[in-house]
Amino acid sequence: MAVFSPMPGCVAGASCCIVCSFAPPLPTPSVRVSVSVLVVGTVAFDSIETPFGAVDQVLGGSATYIALAARYFTRPVRLVGVVGGDFPEAYVDVLRQDGVDLDGLQVEPAGRTFAWKGRYHYDLNQRDTLATDLNVLESFDPVLPEAYRDSRVVCLGNLDPAIQQRVLDQVERPDLVVCDTMNFWIEHTPDSLRDTLRRVDCLIINDAEARELSGEANLVRAARLIREMGPEILIVKKGEHGALLFANGTVFSAPAYPLEDIHDPTGAGDTFAGGFVGYLARAGSFEADVLRQAVVYGSAMASFCVERFGPERLIGLTRDEVDRRAEAFRELAHIPALAPLV
Amino acid sequence: MAVFSPMPGCVAGASCCIVCSFAPPLPTPSVRVSVSVLVVGTVAFDSIETPFGAVDQVLGGSATYIALAARYFTRPVRLVGVVGGDFPEAYVDVLRQDGVDLDGLQVEPAGRTFAWKGRYHYDLNQRDTLATDLNVLESFDPVLPEAYRDSRVVCLGNLDPAIQQRVLDQVERPDLVVCDTMNFWIEHTPDSLRDTLRRVDCLIINDAEARELSGEANLVRAARLIREMGPEILIVKKGEHGALLFANGTVFSAPAYPLEDIHDPTGAGDTFAGGFVGYLARAGSFEADVLRQAVVYGSAMASFCVERFGPERLIGLTRDEVDRRAEAFRELAHIPALAPLV
Repeated sequence: MAVFSPMPGCVAGASCCIVCSFAPPLPTPSVRVSVSVLVVGTVAFDSIETPFGAVDQVLGGSATYIALAARYFTRPVRLVGVVGGDFPEAYVDVLRQDGVDLDGLQVEPAGRTFAWKGRYHYDLNQRDTLATDLNVLESFDPVLPEAYRDSRVVCLGNLDPAIQQRVLDQVERPDLVVCDTMNFWIEHTPDSLRDTLRRVDCLIINDAEARELSGEANLVRAARLIREMGPEILIVKKGEHGALLFANGTVFSAPAYPLEDIHDPTGAGDTFAGGFVGYLARAGSFEADVLRQAVVYGSAMASFCVERFGPERLIGLTRDEVDRRAEAFRELAHIPALAPLV
Repeated sequence: MAVFSPMPGCVAGASCCIVCSFAPPLPTPSVRVSVSVLVVGTVAFDSIETPFGAVDQVLGGSATYIALAARYFTRPVRLVGVVGGDFPEAYVDVLRQDGVDLDGLQVEPAGRTFAWKGRYHYDLNQRDTLATDLNVLESFDPVLPEAYRDSRVVCLGNLDPAIQQRVLDQVERPDLVVCDTMNFWIEHTPDSLRDTLRRVDCLIINDAEARELSGEANLVRAARLIREMGPEILIVKKGEHGALLFANGTVFSAPAYPLEDIHDPTGAGDTFAGGFVGYLARAGSFEADVLRQAVVYGSAMASFCVERFGPERLIGLTRDEVDRRAEAFRELAHIPALAPLV
């Protein structure tokens, strides 16, 4: 199985890529770290083609990206997922380091890991799925370790809504349930998705999915309809156009970070979710201002993700880099006091 | 020739629509009004179909929308354009009121007014042009009234770049030249457009046009290439996703106002330009903060424009409404102080 090619100049044991998997451990966070995050989703092999290159069978999956982003903000980050016997120890190491708790990662020795293959178009805004091999995911029945049941924040990564519900069944009264989904579940398991949504506090989807889920082209109307399905908080991701947060009767429009070099959008949405839930868990609050801040930190993490292939850029970031990127969003969106006409 | 249908409950002489053309005169602006704006562009009959209705041969054209928006901010707003003998007095009245100086509007009695017909798709983000009858525009050779030559801010609405240049030839050292264009000129008169761009301080185009003009998919790179063509300031309009301002070495991302009811996007880009140049002229300054404020006021004006068909909503707005909408953008984009990780 191919993994990441070493970066030019890579020295095994240095800190530059997944081949090495020796990213420097993150320093202990400076602020309170108490709220546990439970992440469920896919752990996958991704094969990705973009106009800027291609990688084969790199570490991927929604739970992977969410956990790798969330661990910058809080501990523990608990991962629930499944892989096959072909899943390499090096990838386990990447995930395990720095606060990702893998006690909930099931390994099916006789099975093969879920694999996805996709190709992005010229402008990176569209992609074609070339192959989806569910493999061990087909029979995945999540069983939470006893210690996971008290998790305070739950992030349901993109996955069969029925599996998302089975995870919720095993968690005792979490403070916040955040959910991601995608067009496949909207189209193929709409009733099951509705059942999940009734149990969700915050839904994160992209604009096309919001329109499809609501049957409404106008995003403001779509948001109202979706929030009537259950989630009090709705985040609509718009890729290179940023994100919208609908909560507390107001709308927040977050910009996207203007990058000159975007290599691979894979995982950006999951990384956003990871930064978002991580920030909320760290803050220990879900009030209006904190939600906006969390959207900005989620956007900042996503902006790092797309700079390299796969989750490579999420390995070995410093918290200072994350802070500086988040602060850049404030400058980017800053509207000076206006000189009114009246 | 059909005009706007009266609004339900319309009483001739009231203030609700173009049929009446009796919008209440705007009160005299409260702040200094000294910087003159010169607008050149089309004055047209627009026939528009959207999923929400259709109108036939309503008042339209780039100069129309720019002038109707700019007049909320400064006086005089001077219009240079051409119409045929079929252009109704009622439309002249709509344009003339409240500070739009029509001394530069040429009337060709034997000719017919430029006419455009278009149909918007379901999500209003795409449109098909069904007919474009250039008519008097085909032989348009702008001759500026002597009094227009000292205009301080020039707004070149979407028009043949050669005509835009002939207008610039007749203006004495303006403080700021703002230019709009579209894909037709990028594709059909690229050399002439380049000549115009060399004489322009600020270019306003949409994201697809920015990519086409630069030959670069990434907007940040595209912006750099376009600014090398002449304009120090670049604004990239993204419709429902807001706008990006590239100036002074920084980027500003302005949101779009989240409207539940968008009836007709026609003229929104021109209205943005009108609000933008109007605010700059009123402020008498083009420094970084003022540019951001002007983008917000331009966005606010555009958000009104799309609420009704044609320029109807731009008639009879109050300045207080405009201020409140602009202030809503600040709330929409506000990022609270962040709690850093380090």
